[in-house]
Amino acid sequence: MRLPGWLAASQWLPLYNRQTAAQDGVAAVVVTIMLIPQSLAYAMLAGLPPQVGLYASILPLVAYALFGSSRTLAVGPVAVASLMTAAAASEIAAAGTPEYIASTIILAALSGAILILMALFKLGWIANLLSHPVVSGFITASGILIAASQLKHLLGVPLSGRNLYELGASLYHHLPDIHLPTLILGGTATVFLFWVRRSFKPLLLKMGLTPFWADLISKAGPVLAVLATTLLAASLRLDQQGVDIVGDIPSGLPGFIMPAMDTELWRQLLVPALLISLIGFVESISVAQTLAAKRRQRINPDQELMGLGTANLASAFSGGFPVTGGFSRSVVNFDAGAQTPMAGVFTAVGIALTALLLTGLFVFLPKATLAATIVVAVLSLVDLATLKHTWHFSRLDFTAMIITIVGVLGWGVEAGVMAGVISSLALYLWRTNQPHVAEIGLVPGTEHFRNVQRHAVKVSPRIMSMRIDESLYFANIRRLEDQIYDAALQRPQTEHVVLMGTAINHLDASAIDGLLSLNRRLADAGITLHFSEIKGPVMDQFKRAALPEQLSGKIYLTHYQAMQDLAPECIKQQDRQDEEDLQPPHTPVS
Amino acid sequence: MRLPGWLAASQWLPLYNRQTAAQDGVAAVVVTIMLIPQSLAYAMLAGLPPQVGLYASILPLVAYALFGSSRTLAVGPVAVASLMTAAAASEIAAAGTPEYIASTIILAALSGAILILMALFKLGWIANLLSHPVVSGFITASGILIAASQLKHLLGVPLSGRNLYELGASLYHHLPDIHLPTLILGGTATVFLFWVRRSFKPLLLKMGLTPFWADLISKAGPVLAVLATTLLAASLRLDQQGVDIVGDIPSGLPGFIMPAMDTELWRQLLVPALLISLIGFVESISVAQTLAAKRRQRINPDQELMGLGTANLASAFSGGFPVTGGFSRSVVNFDAGAQTPMAGVFTAVGIALTALLLTGLFVFLPKATLAATIVVAVLSLVDLATLKHTWHFSRLDFTAMIITIVGVLGWGVEAGVMAGVISSLALYLWRTNQPHVAEIGLVPGTEHFRNVQRHAVKVSPRIMSMRIDESLYFANIRRLEDQIYDAALQRPQTEHVVLMGTAINHLDASAIDGLLSLNRRLADAGITLHFSEIKGPVMDQFKRAALPEQLSGKIYLTHYQAMQDLAPECIKQQDRQDEEDLQPPHTPVS
Repeated sequence: MRLPGWLAASQWLPLYNRQTAAQDGVAAVVVTIMLIPQSLAYAMLAGLPPQVGLYASILPLVAYALFGSSRTLAVGPVAVASLMTAAAASEIAAAGTPEYIASTIILAALSGAILILMALFKLGWIANLLSHPVVSGFITASGILIAASQLKHLLGVPLSGRNLYELGASLYHHLPDIHLPTLILGGTATVFLFWVRRSFKPLLLKMGLTPFWADLISKAGPVLAVLATTLLAASLRLDQQGVDIVGDIPSGLPGFIMPAMDTELWRQLLVPALLISLIGFVESISVAQTLAAKRRQRINPDQELMGLGTANLASAFSGGFPVTGGFSRSVVNFDAGAQTPMAGVFTAVGIALTALLLTGLFVFLPKATLAATIVVAVLSLVDLATLKHTWHFSRLDFTAMIITIVGVLGWGVEAGVMAGVISSLALYLWRTNQPHVAEIGLVPGTEHFRNVQRHAVKVSPRIMSMRIDESLYFANIRRLEDQIYDAALQRPQTEHVVLMGTAINHLDASAIDGLLSLNRRLADAGITLHFSEIKGPVMDQFKRAALPEQLSGKIYLTHYQAMQDLAPECIKQQDRQDEEDLQPPHTPVS
Repeated sequence: MRLPGWLAASQWLPLYNRQTAAQDGVAAVVVTIMLIPQSLAYAMLAGLPPQVGLYASILPLVAYALFGSSRTLAVGPVAVASLMTAAAASEIAAAGTPEYIASTIILAALSGAILILMALFKLGWIANLLSHPVVSGFITASGILIAASQLKHLLGVPLSGRNLYELGASLYHHLPDIHLPTLILGGTATVFLFWVRRSFKPLLLKMGLTPFWADLISKAGPVLAVLATTLLAASLRLDQQGVDIVGDIPSGLPGFIMPAMDTELWRQLLVPALLISLIGFVESISVAQTLAAKRRQRINPDQELMGLGTANLASAFSGGFPVTGGFSRSVVNFDAGAQTPMAGVFTAVGIALTALLLTGLFVFLPKATLAATIVVAVLSLVDLATLKHTWHFSRLDFTAMIITIVGVLGWGVEAGVMAGVISSLALYLWRTNQPHVAEIGLVPGTEHFRNVQRHAVKVSPRIMSMRIDESLYFANIRRLEDQIYDAALQRPQTEHVVLMGTAINHLDASAIDGLLSLNRRLADAGITLHFSEIKGPVMDQFKRAALPEQLSGKIYLTHYQAMQDLAPECIKQQDRQDEEDLQPPHTPVS
């Protein structure tokens, strides 16, 4: 069996055997049982008919199995991407309308195209714009927002809003309309699911089950809730009491769908699709890497982009919506023993059989039950511990995180993630904007130079020696230029400034301009500028910019040589070990 | 005489004497003569009546004198800010309409407010987002765009367009309508002004004038052109031939104007005002610093923001438009001997007298002459040499520059500067995204470690020693994490990874998360992670994030100690000086 190398499946499919198939089969059964209620629920969260959730859980899994690099990532509809889909599509049309469905299909197609382009042009680094605090804040805030958005199904009232404020106002307005049977049903389901998640597994363990089975059965909680409430709703005909049920789901497999070719619509959905792709990729790859490490496997980010991209294209062409790797589902897949992506193919077969044969079972499934599964699932996304750690670790990172959270809750998912990215970039620039610059002096009896504020060192009043502890680029060069110029001018005897470059790894054109400007300004003020201990690559950049020719002073190999040349009296004192001459710094620069 | 300390004038006004006043007076006369045609021309460029240019050259100069920190910066209307003003206001209303004028006043008020807020909250670093290549590309492209926009006055045809493409299309459309008398007058004025700029000063020097006077007289070229063409237009009544003239200018001083309180309009103009402020600040401060250095003075960026901010507020309240420090005007002011900002106050008096008494002189001034002065002034902004240097120096910086230039010429000033800022940030992230990581080994007979690819060093197959040559943050940590993980797994014997941190200056929360994730992934794969030679501040960050407790390995003070502990056989070989054992690297990491 020969497969082309660009197909990721070529790495495992030729070696596939019966034993692996059995392991993958077990995992697929477990994941299918978990995925059925999830796919219905996330379709509802995305504002789509329930069968679309099933459609998005068939072909995308097969596409990922062929092109993705993770052996155990379980792809399909996930909560955050579904929320983002709903937010973007509801800007275009009302939920449930044909235009709305067309928009979600275009979102999947665009996400697929973006991810594949990122794979082909090796642009995965764009995802690095999403710093950990921003992603963490975004996921936490999305969890809260999703839970709030599901209150409408739990309370039986028509809430609307893209952010917490609008949802809150809508809830306040509809408080008198709360539908009691729905509330009781939804509330019970929610409490039950929380109990399953928290206390059912310990109970099963106490009952003597192995940890593996206890874990699996407790993960099946949502299925139990679905079965129980569906039976209840069907037997008591709760739909006639006003409890919203899923209703008829057309059975059958998805047909081939051609996304609507409306360029204006594609343009409007481009930014949301980009954000869905990036967030989905970042989340998927971190799950995939965590699981891969446990078996000493590795993930290829470009292959992963290709896998997720083709999965989204497959979703679009079968009438689905954006999909990505789900965290809890992938962990279940891994724990249940999945060995290869064939487990995903088997899961797809399971979901396809469900779509063909079992849709009749979900007619009486109350929407409140699906909402309860969503609420319980997403509240685990809310990660206050990271918020606390980040506060403790760095105020700058915490600020970016809070801006993201406030942005998502106050304005919506897109505005929030954009605000987060922009603020983390701005805060990073602000941080590198203040390079650490230390005035240095000679450690007596050595050729070493140290910070004058921390060590007893020799300095010459005519010479200002500075060590720059940062690579120089446009965001920090102006301040550095001013800082050195001001420090040199504050000490009237200064004749030479020597900058030690041991910690400068690279420069950009702005940095060169800044150093040349500093050189000119110091020269105008009668002060000569020198450098010492410039690294090879930086020296190459100096030469390309013709800096050595324009420099008023010299570039010394070592700082000690510079001092020998410019302040021999300092070195001579040194030779005499005239330690009484040690001078305190005049104008320390920190 | 006691002045409060927050007034920058408190540093020079109490010491003011008759001699300084005389020097400032001479400079003010020269600058006034230069500023009169410029203020009329830049008002025309901004799409405003000529008297507005005069208004913007009175109170703003007084405000800057009181609050600015440069002794010699000449503030007033400048070409680039006028172009940006026209671009922003013409999005709101047609040039010359009351709404248009209201918009330019709001732009000045907003710029003033933004600059003052930046001063109060010490936000001058935001201007660092504008890298040198972006600013240089922006100024060059603006010069071309301004020259193109003035063709309408030089050719006597009604061109319109925000970018080169629209202007070109409009010109093509209007080619048959070119007004010959206007073209002859404008063309002659342009050629004359180019000649003055290039050849008049050498001629004057040859005629025996001192360089000082030759320079001053050649700078008065525009005044000569204004006088000659005004006399010509008046005597031949060229206006009756269809040559556009400035016409009646209402004489008198500006009244107090309250900017229109239209929140929607303020909101629309916020981004343009921000860009005008930032570009104006960056340009001003670089001129101010260059001039200050020549007299061993210094510029306080925050004070400079305050000076420019109050100047713009003063402009708004007297019916003007955005102002900033002008390059050529400041140089003239400096060369003419200005000692203090009082020269600016004297210049303001000169312009005020002009507005009161001399407006009648400009009735017959042809607009083509003003256009010629603009074209000649702005073509000196076009800086192809920097384009060439930047190409030579760095392809990344060149890319940002070209994106800015193409953006400005193809879409307009705002889109261009935004594209430039975004691309320079993206390119910077792309650069730091690939941290240099070197596998290192022990230099025989020493305790030093060097890159295995460049030096003959000892390595142990069980231990992978890596030196990371970059501070770690969100944009590079994911790649670094993968790089180290993959390198460690490629060599099956690897038991320990030791990361040497001599070049890591700081970390952010994403970097800590990445290192912890690397630690977990390596541990899952059976490999222990250690660090060595971590700097003090980074060690503090490790501790705050509880990294040492979670680390599978240890943090060693020196890399040599790590090797003694983990691979004593390597060190023993060392002791025996068993140089034959030198091993080539297995999987070098570059």
